[in-house]
Amino acid sequence: MIYNCLIINGLLSAGGYVIAVRLIPGFRQKFIDKNRVGKDLCKKNKKEIPESMGVLIGLVFLVVLFLFIPVPFTLGNYSPLLTLGEAIKTGSKTTFPHEKFVELLVALLSIAVMMLLGFIDDIFDLRWRYKLVLPSIAMIPLLMVYAVYYNLTTIIMPKFLRTFVGYSLDIGALYYIYMGMLAVFCTNAINILAGINGLEVGQSLIISASILLFNFIELSLGHQVDAHKFSIYLMLPFLAVSLALWKFNKYPSQVFVGDTFCYFAGMTFAVVGILGHFSKTLILFFLPQIINFLYSIPQLFKFIPCPRHRLPKYDSKSDLLHISTTDFDKNELNMLGRLMVTVLKSLKLITWQEKPDGKVTTNNFTLINFVLLVFGPVHEKILTQMLMGFQILCTVLALIIRYPLANYFYDT
Amino acid sequence: MIYNCLIINGLLSAGGYVIAVRLIPGFRQKFIDKNRVGKDLCKKNKKEIPESMGVLIGLVFLVVLFLFIPVPFTLGNYSPLLTLGEAIKTGSKTTFPHEKFVELLVALLSIAVMMLLGFIDDIFDLRWRYKLVLPSIAMIPLLMVYAVYYNLTTIIMPKFLRTFVGYSLDIGALYYIYMGMLAVFCTNAINILAGINGLEVGQSLIISASILLFNFIELSLGHQVDAHKFSIYLMLPFLAVSLALWKFNKYPSQVFVGDTFCYFAGMTFAVVGILGHFSKTLILFFLPQIINFLYSIPQLFKFIPCPRHRLPKYDSKSDLLHISTTDFDKNELNMLGRLMVTVLKSLKLITWQEKPDGKVTTNNFTLINFVLLVFGPVHEKILTQMLMGFQILCTVLALIIRYPLANYFYDT
Repeated sequence: MIYNCLIINGLLSAGGYVIAVRLIPGFRQKFIDKNRVGKDLCKKNKKEIPESMGVLIGLVFLVVLFLFIPVPFTLGNYSPLLTLGEAIKTGSKTTFPHEKFVELLVALLSIAVMMLLGFIDDIFDLRWRYKLVLPSIAMIPLLMVYAVYYNLTTIIMPKFLRTFVGYSLDIGALYYIYMGMLAVFCTNAINILAGINGLEVGQSLIISASILLFNFIELSLGHQVDAHKFSIYLMLPFLAVSLALWKFNKYPSQVFVGDTFCYFAGMTFAVVGILGHFSKTLILFFLPQIINFLYSIPQLFKFIPCPRHRLPKYDSKSDLLHISTTDFDKNELNMLGRLMVTVLKSLKLITWQEKPDGKVTTNNFTLINFVLLVFGPVHEKILTQMLMGFQILCTVLALIIRYPLANYFYDT
Repeated sequence: MIYNCLIINGLLSAGGYVIAVRLIPGFRQKFIDKNRVGKDLCKKNKKEIPESMGVLIGLVFLVVLFLFIPVPFTLGNYSPLLTLGEAIKTGSKTTFPHEKFVELLVALLSIAVMMLLGFIDDIFDLRWRYKLVLPSIAMIPLLMVYAVYYNLTTIIMPKFLRTFVGYSLDIGALYYIYMGMLAVFCTNAINILAGINGLEVGQSLIISASILLFNFIELSLGHQVDAHKFSIYLMLPFLAVSLALWKFNKYPSQVFVGDTFCYFAGMTFAVVGILGHFSKTLILFFLPQIINFLYSIPQLFKFIPCPRHRLPKYDSKSDLLHISTTDFDKNELNMLGRLMVTVLKSLKLITWQEKPDGKVTTNNFTLINFVLLVFGPVHEKILTQMLMGFQILCTVLALIIRYPLANYFYDT
């Protein structure tokens, strides 16, 4: 019974892959005709590449899941609309999983709205502050449904805190803020670890594969079966359409994915994390993104001057990527800025060239540049592979933390 | 209790209006900067006007309804997740209206997906055949939910047919095709009765006001209270954001609405018609659109040559609109084409000028041109008002058909 639904989901996902692989090249020219293109900056010819292709595979994802909607809910012979009285009379099953049905619909609603907002962002190039607001808007339906159906805002405390605050703590509205923030985090975390061919899709592939691995481990352990099945139902089609996109987006990119894809991917992860009740584990799978975010903070929040693009610098002679740098006057920095660079310098996490007159050259603070800083100039294709390799390492680390170490903090 | 929810919905809708009215002028420049503009063809200066503004008010509509989600479902003190056993033990209400909750979510899902597809159509200018497919895609979730929850495909027969086919007839899959077609019809019907300032929004305002009037009449009669409340929940916010759009889209247009709006409006109507169980009455409210469609058939299906634009012709001297015409050789027409023009000519529904060599000039077959044919050249603003007046007349006719005459066909 469990596996029937998974098999149908897998078949639909495979169908989605086949359709996406055909649609993308078909629509390339359409995107070019309508000037939905972006320049590929790390290439000799800086060719214009069709942009926002994420919207196309996002639609395929939605259609796959639309067709899947009835599958888990009709194979069980439930009677969704029996009243209490009728059920007692006829002795029928009334355990139609209304809440699961609602969860699937609201997940799709939040994801669809995020896609729409992402595509709008691609078309109109919204400002940064909108990028923080949009995922929160798309999360509203999910939060509302959570409020109506569960409104559980109690969290279990780690063992070492229980003597102070007890076994669990009701954090009330903070729980909703946490869920909203998770969506903002997931969407933007993918969006800022980007800029070289294939990286947005590459990292999303590994995150979704990691989630699937985790879901299957939990399923095999018999933990929270419904929640992990739900996650698989969304992650398999996501992996399938992302693989189709990867085929065209990997080095050398024939299409770009757009903010639409980053939003779509991030939102899908956030939704399965929340509704699958494994948001803490999910965050562990975002380790490279968290590192990139932390490393970026000095520039993102303008403690250090931040150029418009922080992409690596392309050297057309060697066809290799070098770190990109930013120049500024040391006296521009305020107290906090000075403190940050001092710490980063002493930990050897940044390059730092200072002229006698106080002019400074340092690398842009992104994980991509940091990899180049450690390993020296490399080819774009290799750079994406290195970052994807790091993402895989982090998944292994995440599973180590999740399984053996979690016992120290929680009873599992 | 009924009225509490309606009042909150009304307040949220009013908030939506206020926000939409502020957002539209704020985003005009953004649309112009990104070249999301269209030419206003019926003006002296043919100015470029921001296009696809429907996506903005569509988003406001969605947010209003997202915030409304919990309202009808928490004011009633339902306990959605009690199991049968717990309910018997505690004697609690288990009559949480799961199906209503699901209906609201799936309605929003279908509408949101339609908006996304509409915006994609605006950006990429998809071909006509896609315009027929896209609404069907957006309808899938609704059809799937219908299949899981109800799967009722039996229709009540009009009295005069009952002696032949019985009181009711199960039409099976045809019922799903009917629902899918309804979405295709509603979205495209509004999309093809368009082209002069304010007409798309104007007709949608009157249709939504007609639906609301009908819902309130039914509520006051105590008929299908839940279904009509549901319809009001969607129609009030729709009317509010459309009024905001009307403020800027009416003659002389400061913004255009785009296919996004036509799709959004049509889908919202189709969804309330289906889930509110009044799809036949809904179709009556589309009388002008049906007339326009029937009149357009000879050109839409290429029995008569069809130019790319069928807009009225603007005369800059008088500032009036005249009928637009199309020229062709009479011998080009096939049998069916000849039959059609013969019928239309004899009913005096078209102009027809024939030269001795067989060259023909006739008006384009649209309701807009027909109004000009009857009343002579008029100003664009007046033309929109005349068509809106006709829409109101049709609503009156629809209510006469629905109420007194329905008794002859059904037991009401």
